[in-house]
Amino acid sequence: MPNVTYEKEITALLVIDPYNDFISEGGKLWDRLKGIAEANNCVPHMLQVLNAARKTGLRIFYALHRRYRRGDYETWKYVAPVQKAAWSHKTFEYGTWGGEIRPEFEPQPNDIVAQEHWCSSGFANTDLDLLLKKHGIGKLIVIGLIAHTCVEATVRFAAELGYEVTMVKDATADYSEVEMHAALDVNIPNYASAVVSTHEIIESLASL
Amino acid sequence: MPNVTYEKEITALLVIDPYNDFISEGGKLWDRLKGIAEANNCVPHMLQVLNAARKTGLRIFYALHRRYRRGDYETWKYVAPVQKAAWSHKTFEYGTWGGEIRPEFEPQPNDIVAQEHWCSSGFANTDLDLLLKKHGIGKLIVIGLIAHTCVEATVRFAAELGYEVTMVKDATADYSEVEMHAALDVNIPNYASAVVSTHEIIESLASL
Amino acid sequence: MPNVTYEKEITALLVIDPYNDFISEGGKLWDRLKGIAEANNCVPHMLQVLNAARKTGLRIFYALHRRYRRGDYETWKYVAPVQKAAWSHKTFEYGTWGGEIRPEFEPQPNDIVAQEHWCSSGFANTDLDLLLKKHGIGKLIVIGLIAHTCVEATVRFAAELGYEVTMVKDATADYSEVEMHAALDVNIPNYASAVVSTHEIIESLASL
Amino acid sequence: MPNVTYEKEITALLVIDPYNDFISEGGKLWDRLKGIAEANNCVPHMLQVLNAARKTGLRIFYALHRRYRRGDYETWKYVAPVQKAAWSHKTFEYGTWGGEIRPEFEPQPNDIVAQEHWCSSGFANTDLDLLLKKHGIGKLIVIGLIAHTCVEATVRFAAELGYEVTMVKDATADYSEVEMHAALDVNIPNYASAVVSTHEIIESLASL
Repeated sequence: MPNVTYEKEITALLVIDPYNDFISEGGKLWDRLKGIAEANNCVPHMLQVLNAARKTGLRIFYALHRRYRRGDYETWKYVAPVQKAAWSHKTFEYGTWGGEIRPEFEPQPNDIVAQEHWCSSGFANTDLDLLLKKHGIGKLIVIGLIAHTCVEATVRFAAELGYEVTMVKDATADYSEVEMHAALDVNIPNYASAVVSTHEIIESLASL
Repeated sequence: MPNVTYEKEITALLVIDPYNDFISEGGKLWDRLKGIAEANNCVPHMLQVLNAARKTGLRIFYALHRRYRRGDYETWKYVAPVQKAAWSHKTFEYGTWGGEIRPEFEPQPNDIVAQEHWCSSGFANTDLDLLLKKHGIGKLIVIGLIAHTCVEATVRFAAELGYEVTMVKDATADYSEVEMHAALDVNIPNYASAVVSTHEIIESLASL
Repeated sequence: MPNVTYEKEITALLVIDPYNDFISEGGKLWDRLKGIAEANNCVPHMLQVLNAARKTGLRIFYALHRRYRRGDYETWKYVAPVQKAAWSHKTFEYGTWGGEIRPEFEPQPNDIVAQEHWCSSGFANTDLDLLLKKHGIGKLIVIGLIAHTCVEATVRFAAELGYEVTMVKDATADYSEVEMHAALDVNIPNYASAVVSTHEIIESLASL
Repeated sequence: MPNVTYEKEITALLVIDPYNDFISEGGKLWDRLKGIAEANNCVPHMLQVLNAARKTGLRIFYALHRRYRRGDYETWKYVAPVQKAAWSHKTFEYGTWGGEIRPEFEPQPNDIVAQEHWCSSGFANTDLDLLLKKHGIGKLIVIGLIAHTCVEATVRFAAELGYEVTMVKDATADYSEVEMHAALDVNIPNYASAVVSTHEIIESLASL
């Protein structure tokens, strides 16, 4: 593991898309994710990292996907495949249970919730970069869903924009091992300075 | 293959990093790329697509990686792993043959060369998006190197920024089949509206 | 007046901050604006341009300032003066009448409302640029409030991002002639390709 | 003057467009600027601030306008008025004396020179934001040319992107008092947390 250190003042936890549709029994995509998610204890790990970050006093940021609303895409000239999927499944539909955050991950009063993102990166076309800068954050610890789309995209953008990223590899999930592998083993190690386990990051945070 | 069409006025070819260091015998990374690149005829395919695009009258854009200069990274607080690699290998060193474009791909007078990018995406921290807009481009056909880093990053950013993307799957290369697969089969199909062969795109362009 | 033309498919009307706090009797800033706004018939002109744009079939976009919510700024390292003012006045407070759009300007079903902006530019840290691109828009007709802050900022950003801008000079207002002059006569003419009257733009739109 | 403090590690000097064409006898725009520039000692002040910043050990960043090259604008769909002016005057022409930096302001080995900007803001479509972040900079002291275009635009963008800005009001110049006033008295005070004299900033820097 690379020599990454975390200082409270400049490090934040970034939680990506903890929606019921992804990680709750009955969510629209849970059946496709649960094979991996249950095998690696994704949801309990996400919660452990969140609680450890809160206990240490890190600022918590949320990057949330656009909640589907009727009329979102009908007038667009181009709709990327990943957006077509969101459109056809009405993923995270606004005003429905699936578009709500799973209760244990509900943002608390001092957490920062960035504007919803339209594609996969939490940074693209949102105020996430601004809000991180306004809080003096230079280092991000990333957890959430799903590994090869929103998580990888957000990690890639974070690196492009100058942040130092730590990916928690067992606090994410994906549809299959193939996609999980592409994200965690092939791509993210080029952009995240550390790829660690929940156990490792909790230990690092406990020492702050 | 999806039903993607190309109109001359709004479609451009985007050529990513055709540096000697990547695709010329003797280049710093050629030995790592040539297994894939020779197997899929990457360089001849890139050239065929470039020539077909020129013949059809598409505008050609270049997204080029930062050519290494001494002092580039020493003072940075955070250097992403992919940048550390560029730093240690002095890839595309400014003023050296490796940092020159392979001659057949040399930009011509009416081509548009965007500013160099520091990480992987041709869009991040450059004028590529501006220059595409200034020329009325909404659709991109993408060729170049290397599949899972700069190419995938640029395709992802293009989709995030609203472009419709076509990836030419045998006009790119990578270090191994694993990375090639992660880029072309797992990730890029979520962001590119079409993933086509050189043969297919040349046929499409010939009919314009 | 420069030779600017408008084609329906690529031209949009951009309405900036038509909040009660700005342009309705009883709004927090109305008393400071009404001198100019009544003298130039700002609100009736805004409405005339909006109606003309709807009649012509232009797409309508809204750029709206962040509605003040408790806790917005307390944790920020730096708060720009214009944000300090918004903070101290609780301008456009979320959930209050002042933070509602003046009824005649309420977005209609096919209008596009961009994410709220934190400072002055409707483009900075929002999805406005994406949504314009997704609708194929290259030309913007701009109306709204207030001239030397959000309007000028949005016009400047639009030009930086590659749009062609038309400013409707009597469909905006400001605190004083000094600020109105700085925006409309000194700065905006460098970034907007045309600065026209309500009468002129309505005539142009009627001919489409 | 607001209560702005400067800490060496997070404060940088940003020098905007110190080209011969602007501030050297014989430069294309010097005759239009020299009335103001000589009255407020703009160039000596710029140099004093630069030297004070170097002595204190602040990092120096340069935001430089696109040096005109033949073919820059011919193929653009839209050219903003400020770009049309640059085009017709061939301002800062690449390879000419006018497009060189005035010798006293020549970047030194540890200075950071951002990519050239196409319109007015040093941030738009460049790597300036990235390079500031990579060096941990949160506060900017701004000097350079010209007040109501590139300087004001860069100050506005800096505020939008989350930086704290100090404007040095007598280390800039403009074509006339009207434009100088619009920039320094009407607009910049909304975005810069401090607007100070050369004397004041040198005193502040001396105490670090």
